[in-house]
Amino acid sequence: MIAEAPRALDRKEVERLVREVLTQKLRGVIPPPARERHAAMQRVPGGPPNPLVVNVSARHMHVTPEHLEILFGPGAKLTKLKDLYQEGEFASEQLVTLVGPRQRIIPNVRILGPVRNYTQVELSYTDGIYLGVDLPLRISGNHDNTPGITILGPKGAVSIPKGVIRAERHAHMSTEDMAFYGVKDGDYLKLRIDGPCGVTFDRIKVRYHPKVILEVHIDTDEGNACDLESATHMELIK
Amino acid sequence: MIAEAPRALDRKEVERLVREVLTQKLRGVIPPPARERHAAMQRVPGGPPNPLVVNVSARHMHVTPEHLEILFGPGAKLTKLKDLYQEGEFASEQLVTLVGPRQRIIPNVRILGPVRNYTQVELSYTDGIYLGVDLPLRISGNHDNTPGITILGPKGAVSIPKGVIRAERHAHMSTEDMAFYGVKDGDYLKLRIDGPCGVTFDRIKVRYHPKVILEVHIDTDEGNACDLESATHMELIK
Repeated sequence: MIAEAPRALDRKEVERLVREVLTQKLRGVIPPPARERHAAMQRVPGGPPNPLVVNVSARHMHVTPEHLEILFGPGAKLTKLKDLYQEGEFASEQLVTLVGPRQRIIPNVRILGPVRNYTQVELSYTDGIYLGVDLPLRISGNHDNTPGITILGPKGAVSIPKGVIRAERHAHMSTEDMAFYGVKDGDYLKLRIDGPCGVTFDRIKVRYHPKVILEVHIDTDEGNACDLESATHMELIK
Repeated sequence: MIAEAPRALDRKEVERLVREVLTQKLRGVIPPPARERHAAMQRVPGGPPNPLVVNVSARHMHVTPEHLEILFGPGAKLTKLKDLYQEGEFASEQLVTLVGPRQRIIPNVRILGPVRNYTQVELSYTDGIYLGVDLPLRISGNHDNTPGITILGPKGAVSIPKGVIRAERHAHMSTEDMAFYGVKDGDYLKLRIDGPCGVTFDRIKVRYHPKVILEVHIDTDEGNACDLESATHMELIK
């Protein structure tokens, strides 16, 4: 270990640098990191109807048309940045800033489209601890006893009284996927991830929808805990 | 879902607030959150020689006496904030700020004492992605092919050329602990955590030291992935 010679540390200079970066962030100059990770096992002949795809859901938000117009101005629409795995779902170009009760912010939170009939913010426990929000574990759309938060957009702010959750781990499945794995909507499976940080996740909730194909969603805490990028093998087990 | 009436959003006011909080942080006015979580199973008669204690290691740093003096001034010593589980180990009152290659900072990183013969920064993958540091998975003290970072203290800065890691999950064990679990130094066990976010962690590395008793260390990504605070049962298995 070699230390560089001690430098004269100008605290004002450090603060200036930090302020500058932060200001750029508030203005959306700095793009968000590519935080989304995914991994997939190839489909094999005689195997499952769809390949096992595991995606990490980075913190994100769903929004009603009404809230979208408050945040981004009258007539605002979500514009597509890129398609997501499920048909019709997309990451929008629209970013918001969350303001938590500890006077801390998380900038550059992406809205996933299309617009919904509820506004919902999905965070990891790491995010929740940082912001000071005690996150309940919920399946998307279940807002019973969930906390609210203040959301800032370029044209306005919304304080939602509820709708902030940690999304429960889940597997989107078609009828064929459920038949192959021998499960029904609402059942639980386990997800085994082999690799340098191998983990088996209990309680992967099966979520049926007629328009989806197999896709497991875990959050960034879970994706980082198992180092999904380095996975050597993945398996859904009962 | 009820939205509050849209507010006039004064961007300058938001920036002022954020700067103020950040400035306070840089000056150490705002205490760090109590991020350390732990859980323990009670010792039972005829059971293991020591209770199973699982602790989450929040991001932290170990430091040489020489680096401590650069960061905190000539003659600086670590002062104890609180004892840790292993005898002689402690969380110090000394905090540093990490500056990563993406011009992002993490303030309030605590130094764990006593001083070491190497300087080492232990972060989660979530931290690494935020800072822009590609973290290698290493057992503490192994700095082969590890990245460096810039560390700011109140009296100076140090740029270490290496020593930034994600700590590999591990279990500190005494001779009696290893005998009970039928393992030796360097072996791997699994850690099963039951609860609402149940997880089984593979590859918990056994680390023997004559002065320790059983304690498993996981990082914040892992602790949050399994929601350790809500664990209903824990078990070390082969």
